[in-house]
Amino acid sequence: MAEKFVSERNLKFLLYEVFDTEALTRYPYFSEHSREMFDMIQDTAMKLGREKLKACLVEMDRVSPRLENGRVLVHPAVRDLMNEFGEGGWISSTAPMELGGQQLPHVVDLVPRFIFAAANYSGSVYPMLTTEAALLIASFGTEEQKETYLPPMFAGKWQGTMALTEPQAGSSLADISTTAEPTDQGYYKIRGQKIFISGSDHDGVDNVVQLLLARIKGAPAGVRGISLFIVPNKRIAENGELVPNDLSIAGVYHKLGYRGCPINQLSLGEEDDCRGWLVGEPNKGLSYMFQMMNAARIGVGLGAAAIASAAYYASLEYAKERPQGRRSSEKDPSLPQVPIINHADVKRMLLFQRAVVEGSLALLCQCSLYHDQRIVLEGEEKEKVEMLLDLLTPVAKSYPSEMGIVSVSQGLQILGGYGYCDEFPLEQYYRDVRIHPIHEGTTGIHGITLLGRNVPMKKGKAFECFAGEIRKVIGEAEKLPETSPLARKLEEALVTLEKVSAFLMKQAGGDPDIFLADATLYLEAFGIVTIAWQWLIQAIAAAKGLGGVTLEDETHFYQGKLFTARYFFSYELPKIDGLVKRLYENDGLTVAMKETYFVD
Amino acid sequence: MAEKFVSERNLKFLLYEVFDTEALTRYPYFSEHSREMFDMIQDTAMKLGREKLKACLVEMDRVSPRLENGRVLVHPAVRDLMNEFGEGGWISSTAPMELGGQQLPHVVDLVPRFIFAAANYSGSVYPMLTTEAALLIASFGTEEQKETYLPPMFAGKWQGTMALTEPQAGSSLADISTTAEPTDQGYYKIRGQKIFISGSDHDGVDNVVQLLLARIKGAPAGVRGISLFIVPNKRIAENGELVPNDLSIAGVYHKLGYRGCPINQLSLGEEDDCRGWLVGEPNKGLSYMFQMMNAARIGVGLGAAAIASAAYYASLEYAKERPQGRRSSEKDPSLPQVPIINHADVKRMLLFQRAVVEGSLALLCQCSLYHDQRIVLEGEEKEKVEMLLDLLTPVAKSYPSEMGIVSVSQGLQILGGYGYCDEFPLEQYYRDVRIHPIHEGTTGIHGITLLGRNVPMKKGKAFECFAGEIRKVIGEAEKLPETSPLARKLEEALVTLEKVSAFLMKQAGGDPDIFLADATLYLEAFGIVTIAWQWLIQAIAAAKGLGGVTLEDETHFYQGKLFTARYFFSYELPKIDGLVKRLYENDGLTVAMKETYFVD
Repeated sequence: MAEKFVSERNLKFLLYEVFDTEALTRYPYFSEHSREMFDMIQDTAMKLGREKLKACLVEMDRVSPRLENGRVLVHPAVRDLMNEFGEGGWISSTAPMELGGQQLPHVVDLVPRFIFAAANYSGSVYPMLTTEAALLIASFGTEEQKETYLPPMFAGKWQGTMALTEPQAGSSLADISTTAEPTDQGYYKIRGQKIFISGSDHDGVDNVVQLLLARIKGAPAGVRGISLFIVPNKRIAENGELVPNDLSIAGVYHKLGYRGCPINQLSLGEEDDCRGWLVGEPNKGLSYMFQMMNAARIGVGLGAAAIASAAYYASLEYAKERPQGRRSSEKDPSLPQVPIINHADVKRMLLFQRAVVEGSLALLCQCSLYHDQRIVLEGEEKEKVEMLLDLLTPVAKSYPSEMGIVSVSQGLQILGGYGYCDEFPLEQYYRDVRIHPIHEGTTGIHGITLLGRNVPMKKGKAFECFAGEIRKVIGEAEKLPETSPLARKLEEALVTLEKVSAFLMKQAGGDPDIFLADATLYLEAFGIVTIAWQWLIQAIAAAKGLGGVTLEDETHFYQGKLFTARYFFSYELPKIDGLVKRLYENDGLTVAMKETYFVD
Repeated sequence: MAEKFVSERNLKFLLYEVFDTEALTRYPYFSEHSREMFDMIQDTAMKLGREKLKACLVEMDRVSPRLENGRVLVHPAVRDLMNEFGEGGWISSTAPMELGGQQLPHVVDLVPRFIFAAANYSGSVYPMLTTEAALLIASFGTEEQKETYLPPMFAGKWQGTMALTEPQAGSSLADISTTAEPTDQGYYKIRGQKIFISGSDHDGVDNVVQLLLARIKGAPAGVRGISLFIVPNKRIAENGELVPNDLSIAGVYHKLGYRGCPINQLSLGEEDDCRGWLVGEPNKGLSYMFQMMNAARIGVGLGAAAIASAAYYASLEYAKERPQGRRSSEKDPSLPQVPIINHADVKRMLLFQRAVVEGSLALLCQCSLYHDQRIVLEGEEKEKVEMLLDLLTPVAKSYPSEMGIVSVSQGLQILGGYGYCDEFPLEQYYRDVRIHPIHEGTTGIHGITLLGRNVPMKKGKAFECFAGEIRKVIGEAEKLPETSPLARKLEEALVTLEKVSAFLMKQAGGDPDIFLADATLYLEAFGIVTIAWQWLIQAIAAAKGLGGVTLEDETHFYQGKLFTARYFFSYELPKIDGLVKRLYENDGLTVAMKETYFVD
């Protein structure tokens, strides 16, 4: 099994050379923190990742969760993990100090999250989900709800979840039909079914807290009638004991990958005694849930990039060690074979993986930094980072998810037949990473969000702002010899994106089916330009770093960065040409294609 | 489980409307055949596919082959299958009549092969491999070898294999080190190890015949010193009984997919008594083996297209039945949800799958037709089809393999969360199809073959001939209103491909590492143009068919064809732009990237 699964050097590069994360500590909200503490967090996370998560990666896959006597049984390591994460403060890291958290910047918190997900994605989901569920209660819950739920959740004793999907309502949240009937006891009676709920029951914790969307009887149809509830698997009885809350597990899904974490089907209120507590106001549930959904979308992008990172290092290690064939310029069969990393095509596949992993991670850092800046900035500056975060969330979710699959597939390909066999970890990574374009909104949904909502919003102000940010970087890159050729390519690509966006915006008033028909292609092109921007930022930092460096390994690191940036601009960025060509056609081909034409 | 896995209508369309397969029966070699017989073959294959192969698709995946007491145990259905295939004449279908075959045209034989592979890929490999191994003996073996091996192989009693790969020699066949020591008994003593050999032992047959590459002691280094041997798992003793041939199974690989067929590790001659019989002349083994390798490459392309076909119909069925959301133009939540096939993005994913499946299948028919024409034509005409088959084999292997993965992935995506769960077949198809870019030469190897060998060969004559064939089709397409816009697009793409090919050929004399560095991208661009050509041929046939049709279903079929052709030209063909942009850079970026730059 490959040892390395993340680059610690790259994480520091992103936090301190690409993004000035330390600057956040100058604001009162983050003033308790320092670079020393950030470094310590990274070191501890690496130790935890290696020893507690990576160590059981394969076993958690092979011994999948199972339903026995109504309880979901998971690998024993999960209880250990949750305890460790609770005690170490990893679950509450970004929560406000007044609620027992550490008020850590999100961009810094990305580091341990990335390390944990790269070490063992399934294992990392338990604490991550608990964090996001707890933060939702922290934002919108009553004092009593916070006091009741946050301490055991932050301690890793209780699992948090997000319970949205129903059999008839997956992508279409407007069709949620789980009902909540008010009582005069302060709680609601919940009745319905939820499916595909990650971590919604397991024996690694003492209780599970579902953050659940339901419809209060008589509420308006559609998304305007959805409310948010806390529905624990066990509720606290008057004597303080935990008693069953009439929530039963109807099934555990058997999945392609991501097998270390159970995804279950829930049945609520079969005996008319499932109690839920309203969070915030009635009918505002979906707007609250967006906090968790948006965080989870960044989390999904991060998970995909993390699995791709582990796959990249596993294939890199193999490529360095496996002798096979000779260079194209050297065919003498009596000479020894060379390690396959000497073949240009293998280096191409490695560069592709690195470009996806580190490009995605940079974008996720950028988004998390916007998140932190939103907390500390005010006025126009705050509005700007909010718009940018909003605009980029579908990209930060979808680019790593879609390209993570291709990236892991290239890693598998490097190992040839061994990549297809379970003695190497690539086949598991390949199965695990496939979930990401599906959960937290499919890629198709995010395309529609980007083109149909985010780009047109505020008369295109967010998009303008985004272009402005990119041009700032282009301006800086033009000044350095290493990066000025890349700056020109990005300027050209940005103009291409601006023009096609303007063209599409003109169609926005017409037939919405035709306008949105190729939203997925638009998302793809937008994503490529976004990642090119993040690679240009990294290339500038690398070019600067290269200036003052003496250590050989450091020189190699910066050179590697510059080559990967060049790779992205030469091999990936040109892909927008084909996408844009299609976007201009805008002829409604897929709308006009009739169901009956699929007859045979 | 979805019922449909192939389109019978489309198979007939390809055989009789796109390619004039019946014309082959005018040649003496194929004169025993007729359209009626071809139809009967298809009907019988469908019945066999449904009842014998599809029926055990899931079970053969779940109950994987295992090694017990030195024997590989497979699903009991395998013995049944092999008997059925043997008795039905499916294994010997294309073999010459004088050897007990039916001399069926390869293009017609593609139909049952495709049906079987779509029904259950793993199950279809056993007979397919046996056919190809038997045909190799038929081509190059002695009369005695033919008499000994062909009857039990054609009867499905003995399995055939191709045993090339060794621990140190996967892609690099020059490094094969299994040895063959001559004896004065007419056989050679074989000693060595082979890995990743499909079907190389199992209890579904009475014996296995390995067509094995080895090096006769004292032979030259490299590929010029490789000979071909027949090495049975059990040899025939003087009394006619089958006795062990000192060939033992060192292990069975546990794989991501393709689990219904065992891939084993072989140890030969541990007790110095593994006997092999030379096929043909010494040191010419690799050139003989190319017959089987090229056939197997078409077989791999076919397998990938077949799995993608099954995945396409499974996702199509789901898309028609699953209600979710409303059209973008209709957001009233009180209206019922619509089946997801109404969403343009879902139709896009379905069209993509259909474009890959039917485009690939057309190319495979085209190649098989060249194969048949090579048998019956003479002189320049024969030379031409030989060149075209040679040129296109890497494309016919790689395009379906690479795009088959993406196609199945899109099918899985249509099912959302259910696509990720094993209650639907998509997750298995997703695992199964991933083998194809690996076995029978990785995509990287085929790129190098195409750019480094096939395009330059005979001063580019094969490529010229290929362009000529495409222009013939363009000329015809220009005459029809439905196809003339596509004709213009293909002419433009062909010119693009010609220009970049000419540019690259100028580099061929320079540094071979740089020349071949982006061969995989060239293969991809070449493949897209090739499939566009096949779609234009189909579009012409559909436009003609539409003219004389009265039945509604037939109109829908032809309309579907035309829409899918338009889809390919609008969404897939433009992808060559980005690839070609990179090919022109030709700056040796991946060659210059040093191993040390991957330091972190």
